[in-house]
Amino acid sequence: MTELHFGVIGAGYWGPHLIRNISEIPGAQLSAVADLVPERLQALRLRYPATHLTRDYRDVLTDGIDAVVIATPVKTHYPLAREALRAGKHVLIEKPLTRRSSEALDLARLADQEGLALMVGHTFEYNPAVVALRNIVQRGDIGDVLYVDAARLNLGQFRPDVNVLWDLAPHDISIMNFILGAEPTHVSARGSTCIHPTMHDVAYLELRYPNGVLGHVHVSWLEPAKVRRFTVVGDEKMVVYNDVAPEEKLRIYDKGVIRTTSSGDFADFQLSYHYGGVTIPAVPGGEPLKIELMHFIDCILSGTRPQSDGWSGLRVTKVLEAADKSLRNGGTRKKLHDSAALEIIEGQAPLRRRVTAAEEALA
Amino acid sequence: MTELHFGVIGAGYWGPHLIRNISEIPGAQLSAVADLVPERLQALRLRYPATHLTRDYRDVLTDGIDAVVIATPVKTHYPLAREALRAGKHVLIEKPLTRRSSEALDLARLADQEGLALMVGHTFEYNPAVVALRNIVQRGDIGDVLYVDAARLNLGQFRPDVNVLWDLAPHDISIMNFILGAEPTHVSARGSTCIHPTMHDVAYLELRYPNGVLGHVHVSWLEPAKVRRFTVVGDEKMVVYNDVAPEEKLRIYDKGVIRTTSSGDFADFQLSYHYGGVTIPAVPGGEPLKIELMHFIDCILSGTRPQSDGWSGLRVTKVLEAADKSLRNGGTRKKLHDSAALEIIEGQAPLRRRVTAAEEALA
Amino acid sequence: MTELHFGVIGAGYWGPHLIRNISEIPGAQLSAVADLVPERLQALRLRYPATHLTRDYRDVLTDGIDAVVIATPVKTHYPLAREALRAGKHVLIEKPLTRRSSEALDLARLADQEGLALMVGHTFEYNPAVVALRNIVQRGDIGDVLYVDAARLNLGQFRPDVNVLWDLAPHDISIMNFILGAEPTHVSARGSTCIHPTMHDVAYLELRYPNGVLGHVHVSWLEPAKVRRFTVVGDEKMVVYNDVAPEEKLRIYDKGVIRTTSSGDFADFQLSYHYGGVTIPAVPGGEPLKIELMHFIDCILSGTRPQSDGWSGLRVTKVLEAADKSLRNGGTRKKLHDSAALEIIEGQAPLRRRVTAAEEALA
Amino acid sequence: MTELHFGVIGAGYWGPHLIRNISEIPGAQLSAVADLVPERLQALRLRYPATHLTRDYRDVLTDGIDAVVIATPVKTHYPLAREALRAGKHVLIEKPLTRRSSEALDLARLADQEGLALMVGHTFEYNPAVVALRNIVQRGDIGDVLYVDAARLNLGQFRPDVNVLWDLAPHDISIMNFILGAEPTHVSARGSTCIHPTMHDVAYLELRYPNGVLGHVHVSWLEPAKVRRFTVVGDEKMVVYNDVAPEEKLRIYDKGVIRTTSSGDFADFQLSYHYGGVTIPAVPGGEPLKIELMHFIDCILSGTRPQSDGWSGLRVTKVLEAADKSLRNGGTRKKLHDSAALEIIEGQAPLRRRVTAAEEALA
Repeated sequence: MTELHFGVIGAGYWGPHLIRNISEIPGAQLSAVADLVPERLQALRLRYPATHLTRDYRDVLTDGIDAVVIATPVKTHYPLAREALRAGKHVLIEKPLTRRSSEALDLARLADQEGLALMVGHTFEYNPAVVALRNIVQRGDIGDVLYVDAARLNLGQFRPDVNVLWDLAPHDISIMNFILGAEPTHVSARGSTCIHPTMHDVAYLELRYPNGVLGHVHVSWLEPAKVRRFTVVGDEKMVVYNDVAPEEKLRIYDKGVIRTTSSGDFADFQLSYHYGGVTIPAVPGGEPLKIELMHFIDCILSGTRPQSDGWSGLRVTKVLEAADKSLRNGGTRKKLHDSAALEIIEGQAPLRRRVTAAEEALA
Repeated sequence: MTELHFGVIGAGYWGPHLIRNISEIPGAQLSAVADLVPERLQALRLRYPATHLTRDYRDVLTDGIDAVVIATPVKTHYPLAREALRAGKHVLIEKPLTRRSSEALDLARLADQEGLALMVGHTFEYNPAVVALRNIVQRGDIGDVLYVDAARLNLGQFRPDVNVLWDLAPHDISIMNFILGAEPTHVSARGSTCIHPTMHDVAYLELRYPNGVLGHVHVSWLEPAKVRRFTVVGDEKMVVYNDVAPEEKLRIYDKGVIRTTSSGDFADFQLSYHYGGVTIPAVPGGEPLKIELMHFIDCILSGTRPQSDGWSGLRVTKVLEAADKSLRNGGTRKKLHDSAALEIIEGQAPLRRRVTAAEEALA
Repeated sequence: MTELHFGVIGAGYWGPHLIRNISEIPGAQLSAVADLVPERLQALRLRYPATHLTRDYRDVLTDGIDAVVIATPVKTHYPLAREALRAGKHVLIEKPLTRRSSEALDLARLADQEGLALMVGHTFEYNPAVVALRNIVQRGDIGDVLYVDAARLNLGQFRPDVNVLWDLAPHDISIMNFILGAEPTHVSARGSTCIHPTMHDVAYLELRYPNGVLGHVHVSWLEPAKVRRFTVVGDEKMVVYNDVAPEEKLRIYDKGVIRTTSSGDFADFQLSYHYGGVTIPAVPGGEPLKIELMHFIDCILSGTRPQSDGWSGLRVTKVLEAADKSLRNGGTRKKLHDSAALEIIEGQAPLRRRVTAAEEALA
Repeated sequence: MTELHFGVIGAGYWGPHLIRNISEIPGAQLSAVADLVPERLQALRLRYPATHLTRDYRDVLTDGIDAVVIATPVKTHYPLAREALRAGKHVLIEKPLTRRSSEALDLARLADQEGLALMVGHTFEYNPAVVALRNIVQRGDIGDVLYVDAARLNLGQFRPDVNVLWDLAPHDISIMNFILGAEPTHVSARGSTCIHPTMHDVAYLELRYPNGVLGHVHVSWLEPAKVRRFTVVGDEKMVVYNDVAPEEKLRIYDKGVIRTTSSGDFADFQLSYHYGGVTIPAVPGGEPLKIELMHFIDCILSGTRPQSDGWSGLRVTKVLEAADKSLRNGGTRKKLHDSAALEIIEGQAPLRRRVTAAEEALA
């Protein structure tokens, strides 16, 4: 089997996880890693003796490389990704895709034009528990979704480049979009700058989805015990996804409220409750990051569009951008731009693909 | 010992708990209970043979009664309490005190004028774990408070008379005011009407306290597993109060973020974390409702002001009223009226008291 | 409806719970309570003004009484129960039934001869979660039972009259017999006398049931956090019953080991595992003690044999007696007497009944 | 820095963990790995290109190797270790050290004679939580130890070569010896052969330590949810070590029983309880296996005796051997051989050491 040659830009916090996984996937070759900090490269030398280690990211965009993985500070995502796409590389970028939605739009268009795979690292869309949750919801097992509540809390890892919203909420927004198969129409956000004088470390997002579905996201860098909880309330059942639980991450509660309005008159409004049991489905194992990378490779080789492609990254960036504005403007509710205007089309054409070096060799 | 004679108006959901506790407290005599529903009275007859059971609440405002406990639908609180105070009775009202802050103000003033004890059933202010939490916070054990997050979620018990905000949030607002020793200056709220066409069953409140302290409250009638959690984040330690835990309700985390800004320049902003252990203090037992009732009796007999007096009820009602407006207006932030204008004075005069029948007999 | 008149002997630790429940059950009349300690009677006077309170237990065995409930120190169970049965009373005795199996046998025989209901307070056989567990096991939902492990641990309530084995293990032995529909053939026990010089406060019981099923019970008065856990391992599924959980007391794990021995030769012994999901069934509510008392009343009125009758109490007492011997003899395994010799017959005749005062009135 | 050259024999279940850790420790060089199964070697080839991979274990005992790690089936431990020691290699063997205590004694003596480090992989003695627990106990923080209870339960990983006792109990026995600073004088065991016709998969061990301290160990391959819990009850406090908890592995309960015997007469025996809070100490992180390997390296380089040396392995093997006999003989209690006769001397001489190749190079 011919291997895909990978280059990684950024070996800071998240980069080493990507590097390790790439090195362990059959069919992937870790060809080059670029980082500005010599110590980081030094730390990789022993373990990856065959990999080209460099301080210059341009060394990663050279001919032998098929795909580039970008794990650098957020503000550099756009220029680096643009240059990589221009150089004909498939690109995987850590979340959030970019700092601005205009940049995300540009990257999404560019990748489509060039027929390259552009993917954003919405890791949770590759988490088996989240996939199982999506299937439960989309099969209608819990009835119509009424509301969704998410919390992602922990102490620590304040980032110097973005606030807590941009750091943590991309996960929850991408999960919500993924599970609901929809994107929000309005967003507002509140929060607090507890530690840093201007950078929010606690935030609460309200997402209004079509059909009156409310989404709420609580993110915080200031919580004593780690919380990663996602509750989906349907009109027949309810599901809780607790990512912190070592096992039993999904719990389906056979509980709900039954409306019985005999006459259609509100005065007659009657409610009853049913309190059934709980089901904890067996969820297949697998490290989400590895599954994500294998999906990226699969998309490159088959010319199909990644689950979390540039447009998906754009949808999340739009929400973050609007939420951040709301956060700085007293929590006012922002209407999100019409999706159509952003060329996000439901039945999008399959990726027009450029043949990679690996595929040429394969042919 | 002379006994205080109690009358109870309302024997629906919460009334029977009050009735049982009154019947068990030495020094309290359950003299009369009024309810419009004959079946409820019937259910009490066997257990409380010596109590006068009546469908007419006016029978409870007669001469032999010292104190009246009101556990009726919220909209009736004001007229019933007003009539009881006018009749010279000490009054304990279930939360929320009233539907409008103007009504709460009127009752608070009236009670003070008449020298009667007026108390609102903010039960959690009498919960030993909450009292311990308040002491931890006010002693400065966790440093300066940065933010407070509360969740009170459960499936069921939709109320026909008020929405989830008025039903559940009084507890969290009263706890926050109690713990912080302050009241919010601004409030906003978002939520959803998942089941009823117009009545909110899920709500998120943002409370802005002085000194930039953020309070957030999530209340819901639509949650599969009961949650009653309260997190107080200080700049030195953090506390979680989990009321659902059968034991170990309070956990003090010796964790925090340390700011080290050498030059005062934001660019120098440095953070480090300390991750210490957890302490779970032993909290004394005791049923909060019984402690609340004993405090009420104590205040009547000693002429002191209840912890959760009419002014305390007013402070909570103001927040609820403004939050409800915000909820119906897209979540806009509301400024709360200046406290001074509402005559809520920190160093309030001790209760000027009217001598009760019980005390006359005692004298 | 004619009421059954109840007398209670013993108002110490457990008596008040029995007294309260009897007072709340329609069809039961709490006629008399006897206790040697005047303060205990005093404490009951206010709440149960119509009940005859006495220091002489013989006042409880008088003509007006139909049924006697005995909640006294264990060594007094036998003489009191014997006298009550002789006086023609139906008898409910707190566990363990008696101190010796010979006494238990005598009571079981006597009750049958007299046609009276004799019941022992194996409360857990009336616990809805235990009943659900028994049904799960006996329907074959978990396949063949391989082994059962029980733990009942807590700090405190050292009893002066019996050791931890006699205090706590009756519950677990009765649950095991109940769930398995069998009684053990051999027993051994180990333990420790940590606090008292001669009284065991920690014990481990091994129960050998027919078909090679192993039962193990750990009881302790010296454990920091309360544990009441019961695990039943079947060859297809496994169940955990956690009585300490506020909800979700039963968890059915769809997990197991699959034996595949192609040739019958041990060398070929192959194993595989299946790791399915977890199901938490909804279990009906209800206070076990109230259900137990209502069953007792039902048996008296219908002339049927109680679930936990004298023979059931005998089966538990035999195990305790043998285990206690083992405990004092270095843990040697004791064979239990042949059940047949003890007249415990599977298809026992229905209770031959004496007509009670209540029934005469009813006729 | 000169590196120690490691050879590993056995790359089955546990071997790869050892291999990965050795490859990551600075100062250690993974020189050779032997395994009989070609596929296992194949799987290592890509990741460890510089390591000699061989089917012949004798290739690992060659001149360039300083230390040999043995992770093969238990019955091969003795001959392989003997040969390795004879060849002048320092040896680390997976637990249990050997199948027989006579073999363990022989290895312990041989290592001492040769001045080589012999270490057994009692990983938990290198687990930071266990070390913290030992310090808590040995500092006297919980008073005198009254009893210790351990459970190590899980579904699966039946081993073909040894029963559950030999597979899992070495951990708990080594932890108990380590924490108590003592070894048991008597042992008995009960259990069941639920799946395999002759191999125990569930076992209960009773360990009698000096001063009347009871130890109890429950091990099982048949449990639905993973349990690894260790409770140490002292006469002043109690500690629970829960290894399954993702955090907060140690909980110190300030609870206990207070004996007050005024006259020394048992009849006067009075007890009271104190129920204080819980403390969860912060425990340093670190992978126990890596810490264990670094300790091994440290002992080799400094010529000091490993914490879990051959004598420690002998002490555990003796208990397992006796427990296994008891298990097959109806649970009779076995006296363990006098320690003195086994040359286990408290104040043992420091390891007389042979200079390794690495050290020669270093000199």
